[in-house]
Amino acid sequence: MNSKDVEKILKLVKSGEVDIASAASRISTHLDFSDVKPDTSRKERLGFDEVIYGRSKSIEQIENIALKYIENELNFVCTGLDSGKMDALLREFPHFQANRQAGILRHIISAAPRKEGKVAVITAGTSDIKVASEAAEILDICGIDADIHADIGVAGIHRFFSVREQISDAKVIIVIAGMEGALPSITGGMFPHPVIAVPTSTGYGAALEGFTALFSMLASCANGITVVNIDNGFGAAMAAVRIINALQEN
Amino acid sequence: MNSKDVEKILKLVKSGEVDIASAASRISTHLDFSDVKPDTSRKERLGFDEVIYGRSKSIEQIENIALKYIENELNFVCTGLDSGKMDALLREFPHFQANRQAGILRHIISAAPRKEGKVAVITAGTSDIKVASEAAEILDICGIDADIHADIGVAGIHRFFSVREQISDAKVIIVIAGMEGALPSITGGMFPHPVIAVPTSTGYGAALEGFTALFSMLASCANGITVVNIDNGFGAAMAAVRIINALQEN
Amino acid sequence: MNSKDVEKILKLVKSGEVDIASAASRISTHLDFSDVKPDTSRKERLGFDEVIYGRSKSIEQIENIALKYIENELNFVCTGLDSGKMDALLREFPHFQANRQAGILRHIISAAPRKEGKVAVITAGTSDIKVASEAAEILDICGIDADIHADIGVAGIHRFFSVREQISDAKVIIVIAGMEGALPSITGGMFPHPVIAVPTSTGYGAALEGFTALFSMLASCANGITVVNIDNGFGAAMAAVRIINALQEN
Amino acid sequence: MNSKDVEKILKLVKSGEVDIASAASRISTHLDFSDVKPDTSRKERLGFDEVIYGRSKSIEQIENIALKYIENELNFVCTGLDSGKMDALLREFPHFQANRQAGILRHIISAAPRKEGKVAVITAGTSDIKVASEAAEILDICGIDADIHADIGVAGIHRFFSVREQISDAKVIIVIAGMEGALPSITGGMFPHPVIAVPTSTGYGAALEGFTALFSMLASCANGITVVNIDNGFGAAMAAVRIINALQEN
Amino acid sequence: MNSKDVEKILKLVKSGEVDIASAASRISTHLDFSDVKPDTSRKERLGFDEVIYGRSKSIEQIENIALKYIENELNFVCTGLDSGKMDALLREFPHFQANRQAGILRHIISAAPRKEGKVAVITAGTSDIKVASEAAEILDICGIDADIHADIGVAGIHRFFSVREQISDAKVIIVIAGMEGALPSITGGMFPHPVIAVPTSTGYGAALEGFTALFSMLASCANGITVVNIDNGFGAAMAAVRIINALQEN
Amino acid sequence: MNSKDVEKILKLVKSGEVDIASAASRISTHLDFSDVKPDTSRKERLGFDEVIYGRSKSIEQIENIALKYIENELNFVCTGLDSGKMDALLREFPHFQANRQAGILRHIISAAPRKEGKVAVITAGTSDIKVASEAAEILDICGIDADIHADIGVAGIHRFFSVREQISDAKVIIVIAGMEGALPSITGGMFPHPVIAVPTSTGYGAALEGFTALFSMLASCANGITVVNIDNGFGAAMAAVRIINALQEN
Amino acid sequence: MNSKDVEKILKLVKSGEVDIASAASRISTHLDFSDVKPDTSRKERLGFDEVIYGRSKSIEQIENIALKYIENELNFVCTGLDSGKMDALLREFPHFQANRQAGILRHIISAAPRKEGKVAVITAGTSDIKVASEAAEILDICGIDADIHADIGVAGIHRFFSVREQISDAKVIIVIAGMEGALPSITGGMFPHPVIAVPTSTGYGAALEGFTALFSMLASCANGITVVNIDNGFGAAMAAVRIINALQEN
Amino acid sequence: MNSKDVEKILKLVKSGEVDIASAASRISTHLDFSDVKPDTSRKERLGFDEVIYGRSKSIEQIENIALKYIENELNFVCTGLDSGKMDALLREFPHFQANRQAGILRHIISAAPRKEGKVAVITAGTSDIKVASEAAEILDICGIDADIHADIGVAGIHRFFSVREQISDAKVIIVIAGMEGALPSITGGMFPHPVIAVPTSTGYGAALEGFTALFSMLASCANGITVVNIDNGFGAAMAAVRIINALQEN
Repeated sequence: MNSKDVEKILKLVKSGEVDIASAASRISTHLDFSDVKPDTSRKERLGFDEVIYGRSKSIEQIENIALKYIENELNFVCTGLDSGKMDALLREFPHFQANRQAGILRHIISAAPRKEGKVAVITAGTSDIKVASEAAEILDICGIDADIHADIGVAGIHRFFSVREQISDAKVIIVIAGMEGALPSITGGMFPHPVIAVPTSTGYGAALEGFTALFSMLASCANGITVVNIDNGFGAAMAAVRIINALQEN
Repeated sequence: MNSKDVEKILKLVKSGEVDIASAASRISTHLDFSDVKPDTSRKERLGFDEVIYGRSKSIEQIENIALKYIENELNFVCTGLDSGKMDALLREFPHFQANRQAGILRHIISAAPRKEGKVAVITAGTSDIKVASEAAEILDICGIDADIHADIGVAGIHRFFSVREQISDAKVIIVIAGMEGALPSITGGMFPHPVIAVPTSTGYGAALEGFTALFSMLASCANGITVVNIDNGFGAAMAAVRIINALQEN
Repeated sequence: MNSKDVEKILKLVKSGEVDIASAASRISTHLDFSDVKPDTSRKERLGFDEVIYGRSKSIEQIENIALKYIENELNFVCTGLDSGKMDALLREFPHFQANRQAGILRHIISAAPRKEGKVAVITAGTSDIKVASEAAEILDICGIDADIHADIGVAGIHRFFSVREQISDAKVIIVIAGMEGALPSITGGMFPHPVIAVPTSTGYGAALEGFTALFSMLASCANGITVVNIDNGFGAAMAAVRIINALQEN
Repeated sequence: MNSKDVEKILKLVKSGEVDIASAASRISTHLDFSDVKPDTSRKERLGFDEVIYGRSKSIEQIENIALKYIENELNFVCTGLDSGKMDALLREFPHFQANRQAGILRHIISAAPRKEGKVAVITAGTSDIKVASEAAEILDICGIDADIHADIGVAGIHRFFSVREQISDAKVIIVIAGMEGALPSITGGMFPHPVIAVPTSTGYGAALEGFTALFSMLASCANGITVVNIDNGFGAAMAAVRIINALQEN
Repeated sequence: MNSKDVEKILKLVKSGEVDIASAASRISTHLDFSDVKPDTSRKERLGFDEVIYGRSKSIEQIENIALKYIENELNFVCTGLDSGKMDALLREFPHFQANRQAGILRHIISAAPRKEGKVAVITAGTSDIKVASEAAEILDICGIDADIHADIGVAGIHRFFSVREQISDAKVIIVIAGMEGALPSITGGMFPHPVIAVPTSTGYGAALEGFTALFSMLASCANGITVVNIDNGFGAAMAAVRIINALQEN
Repeated sequence: MNSKDVEKILKLVKSGEVDIASAASRISTHLDFSDVKPDTSRKERLGFDEVIYGRSKSIEQIENIALKYIENELNFVCTGLDSGKMDALLREFPHFQANRQAGILRHIISAAPRKEGKVAVITAGTSDIKVASEAAEILDICGIDADIHADIGVAGIHRFFSVREQISDAKVIIVIAGMEGALPSITGGMFPHPVIAVPTSTGYGAALEGFTALFSMLASCANGITVVNIDNGFGAAMAAVRIINALQEN
Repeated sequence: MNSKDVEKILKLVKSGEVDIASAASRISTHLDFSDVKPDTSRKERLGFDEVIYGRSKSIEQIENIALKYIENELNFVCTGLDSGKMDALLREFPHFQANRQAGILRHIISAAPRKEGKVAVITAGTSDIKVASEAAEILDICGIDADIHADIGVAGIHRFFSVREQISDAKVIIVIAGMEGALPSITGGMFPHPVIAVPTSTGYGAALEGFTALFSMLASCANGITVVNIDNGFGAAMAAVRIINALQEN
Repeated sequence: MNSKDVEKILKLVKSGEVDIASAASRISTHLDFSDVKPDTSRKERLGFDEVIYGRSKSIEQIENIALKYIENELNFVCTGLDSGKMDALLREFPHFQANRQAGILRHIISAAPRKEGKVAVITAGTSDIKVASEAAEILDICGIDADIHADIGVAGIHRFFSVREQISDAKVIIVIAGMEGALPSITGGMFPHPVIAVPTSTGYGAALEGFTALFSMLASCANGITVVNIDNGFGAAMAAVRIINALQEN
């Protein structure tokens, strides 16, 4: 940690964005910024900023990244935060906004313009709502409206039919399901929309921590369904963002 | 091969059940009956005779078993026969009856009495019909009527609803599906019947040669669905036989 | 949470079904009922009410569901509860009945009529008793008697033979086994009854957390054995309920 | 096969769509149409007709389906055909059009209107071209133009950069790669377009018959990439069709 | 191939152990002996000679090895031979002895002395007999008597009990079973003998080409059962040889 | 819990084998003995008593079993105990003997007679010593001497050669190794003894929690090596007991 | 295929590099060169030319690539060729050089300069020699000498010690082994050289088609061993080339 | 623990290398040195000392090993230490040096001479830095300089190009990446250096705890990339040490 790094922290202390105790701790433990390389041109290239995936990073690493982002005046969005990390980060950055159900922390400097065309986010069970919240939160950050229709899985298929019209109003459908992952097949067979399927780790034993749902969705008999990683509500939202953005250009 | 075994073959030649050329070949190659132990008390114990699984046996082994069964005056039923084995066995035993679509060869000495209560056999796609045929053939051998409703998978779910009443008339439902294996979940959520699900090896890549359908059915959100091995139409039929037999006793 | 939801909670407070502190907490944290869609027609369709699977749900989600069920005057049954969740729910709903060994909490408003025909529940080891308890508890809720015969696995097969007659008196047999999962094969080879096999996660290493038992049961040389998910005592019970219900109709 | 089915075949003979020898063979072997249930409302529901997956069906089953489609005046498109099936079907239906590299046979009665917005189909190696051809052929059938950019994988990444502009002109990008499946990550990091990744079974050993590429694409560090089944050029095309169709509506 | 190698071949021609045509072919194709390193001290170290595993070797490689063994006056035993390789090798070495059911070719120069104590080889089904033959043939070559009791699997467990006494007379029990692999558990629970279990690839789907039986045997609830590789009758025999040899020393 | 069960507990209190507090707790919580079926004839059948596997059982279940064993005057041996369970059981049964490194608790009423012939237990690394201790403890309980040679793995193969003579003095060799599991191949190639290989879960990543060592040992190029489950020192010891017992008979 | 492509072929006919019949066939079937993008700068970047992997390519694709390479005056080397493809390519390009044991076809225009420092290629069994040949052939093409020491696996470890000095003379060691893959651990523990391990698909059952050897090598207790894909003799050679090239620079 | 062992501990107390309290504890708990067999000739054989892998060892085992190393005057280096073990060991051996990010504890008695030629260590993300630290620390201990270039993964490939020259200056490249593991392919296609790829367990779901990255690297389309175990920064460093040492000899 060179003197320039120390200076940066002191400036953040002065502006109130970092409190004194944590700045002292940071300086004395020689944590610095040198390993963080924000992809500053991503918004220009792709239409959205880089988002931090918090689960595999230590609190210190996320703090360093947040400081770098503040310094570069980039929007900071971090996903995959459990309660412990969320609390620790909010102590350091009390003015950040938290969505605890979604596990997302955000600090938006320049908000995205609102887009035309909303996204329907549907889930098979109540256990899948956390993933739906992550998707909806990311869509909101990107300027896109989302409607969540939860708990309409195939064991009581009449519940699905009861919201058929509302789903049809959206431009893109995100379908979230665990266990046998059958809901995307029904959805893809009934609607002409782009369908993005998200398997979840709901279930046990033969549910294979989400892999059964993942493979079911990939092997679906319904045509043209696309799939993202297990529990990856963020990825599904970003895929929808790419499509909604393409619609804006027209 | 001792002289008693030779005698047996000669008697079968005399009665016309085995032709001369194959008897000669059999004697000269020293194939004998000694390894075959028919479970002669199975019908008494379980209500149905032993059935031979032909896929993992050589033609010679199946022939030996058939001879033993003829000798013991047992019903001979062999499943899992491809065209080559079927042809070879029919040359040896021309009076046996073949169901080529089901891959089953039968030689019934004492037919089962017809039972009350039929079974609905439904399939998701046309590729699953072979397995449905195996199930229906076995049910017929056991004295039980079966209706096949094919090609009513979830990608066009209206086809399933169109045969709802016919399915409901059965006492037991066998559901056969490959790929994502979603049909049993819909079925189990709509009917109160005993449901036996059969995953098939239809599909490719993420269908995992039937394991995705298998795991989907085991992890189904519909309650009380039971599952048998991949492509095991025979096993599903036998499970239905156990239930239908229990119904007779009442 | 709209005023109607608040009203509902207040009514439950008044009737004593929810205590004041937890109602206050509920209101202030904006938890509401909107994500819960009880399948109110399930009993009519299938002959049994929806049962909640508690393992993948948070305490808050289960509480919300319980409130919805109380409100709709449905029988509330929740499985898969560990000690922590059980305690938390009993604090909230002290008049609910808990079976701790089975991990089941129930609040029955209209009891099921008792059915003809009992179920034999047999286990290979003492480690499998938890799963047997879950099955027996669910059967009891559905009006069906069950006898448990525990610890009669194949390493000392004489123990199995000693209860042969008692097992034979049942209409359906549920066989629960971990490790190599061999007990269903013996059972299926000895009894003509419908046999539902439940693999358990008992064992280590090559037991593959229950998958070895699962695959053993699916690949069993005994005919017509059906299988449910690992540790799924609930599913086995529901499959037996479907069969016993079919027997009633006769 | 009832007399109505025979009549149908005779009409097709008369019209020249089926030749005499094969009609005779068909009638004498009792193959009939009863198992085929074309999803006649799919175009209305989804914007595209049902497509037959030929790999898991016998030649007889495909012929039956083709006859049903001709009878119902539906567009017939069949994928997944190897040389043997292709030859057999062309003998029966000589006026059908074959794309041998893509493994697709088509008989189009009413062509799709051409759409706005083309699709870029890029592949990592020459071994992936078969899958790219399948995607491009399906897109063409659905009225959409596709440009194939082949053999631009990451081991010589300058080849990818050399076609950057052409790729950017498309509305949707389909990326096809086997082995380590790295190309979609580069693509998703460079272009804001909707990206549909197709893993292929190219490679050996640790390539796991396409599963390494599949998992790589699902675990990609690039945001918002969606994935379809291994070698599923057809599915990728249909996913692109859903997006392109959404663009038309705007 | 140097002149010394050519000389060796010519000597074998002269002695009649190799015929002229195959010697000519061998010389002209430059196949030589240089890659073969017989483990000439193995018998001294371990009590038995090296045995060749023929499945993964080409006919040319096996021929080279056989020539080396003839040259070094070692006993030549080759396992894992299918019909094609067996025929080719017998054409080259017509005085070798073949056991076609076992897939073993042998050319014994100094026979092993007969040992005290026999081995019981028991199998669950008729499909497992090939593996039993391999084990029995190897035991015979090592001077040990073996009794085969075939087709006594758990689906008709009374067959197993009927040979209980004969099995008990042996010193070591080899148990061979496919599918669910339950027979070793019963055996280990009933006999105090050393038990060597051999899983076989008999079965389909959930039998996992022998891995279900393998894992079942490893996870067996019976104590002290040991296991060898799938279909490895040879390995089971060698393990029995090690035990029987230890018994001789006493 | 009936009065007879209460009586039993009171008698144990009187004899001092159970203390008052725990007896009171036991009676008040209605834990009883009814689920435990000790295999009382096992010693007679197999030459050794039943041993309890403690890992998958609750403390209450193990206590119940221990009481049953005390009551039936059987030797009680329990394996797989972590520190927590060990402490809890020693509080209840303070006169039992614990081997904490081996995770074994024993209460021997009639000691086994000492046997002829010792066992060599060798390990590849220091991490494997826990499993070696389990094996040696069980052998000691069964009256058999064992020498442990630890930390002689293949990365420094000279350490293995340095104890060659000591190993050779044993009648049976147990080889314990994790990671790549290579030590049994070297051992089997150098010694004519019966070799029992135990894979351990030592290692990470590609060590697959012991499955790499397991598969390595099963696929070993050394002949006649047998294998038991991962970390199963107990099973290896029991397999050695079976062999040593066979040696006694001679 | 445009006129320029036709011209190219005609020129090759004229120069004798392609014969008339195959040129005619090529032109009439519209195969063209457009999909092939040789990485013409690879030698400059990496020090070696691109090598074609022939297994996943059709004969037509390889021919197209060969023509492109001839046209661009690049060295053409193709690996992974079975007998059928080798014969077909040699008919088309009779002046190419084939190494049938290695499965490699080469057409070298500018030979690599010979390098300092040779490579030792050692194999565990005779079944691994094909992979060793592939490695040695590639090394030779790159100007590097290789010594093959075959059949020195761990079941007779004295064979390995007997060539210790010769191995030590090399600069890099390539170790090739199937089954349990133990040889690299011994090698890495004895020599300070860079060690590149190649797992092979030799073996059956628990050998997992080479994955057991692969995982063993990755989990090896010897330090600093590196691993390439299963059967990838080519990749091991290229890794050695990178090291030997680095040595030249010094 | 014999008197000689006690003496050794007392000497270490006297010299201050072990404090009194821990020596007392050690003596009273009978922990001794007998299981530890340091490979004292490794440095002479391989050019580097044995390094202890701490993750699978208890604190007591590591302490015993450290004492043995101190006694034998060997360099002590222990990897894979979490915070708990690190703290416990530092209390016992306060003069040892800890690198907490790398999880390495070292006590160097004779430092390695510095070598010619440095190593470039590059990582795809910030989550991979821990593994990079482990590699760099080991290289430093072996006398080799390393430059870390972190967070330059393929989703923003321009970051990689920006450090191209610095990477090129090294003699060996270690590439560390999780998730899809694509960075080694790019690296291997751009640089002629020896490339050692390290997959990390970064990611979730389809990242398969590092196996997706592992398989990607093994199946890479770039030639001559070698791979080590998941998260094995230590192994990659040792592989680089072997190469750098070979370079010194020239």
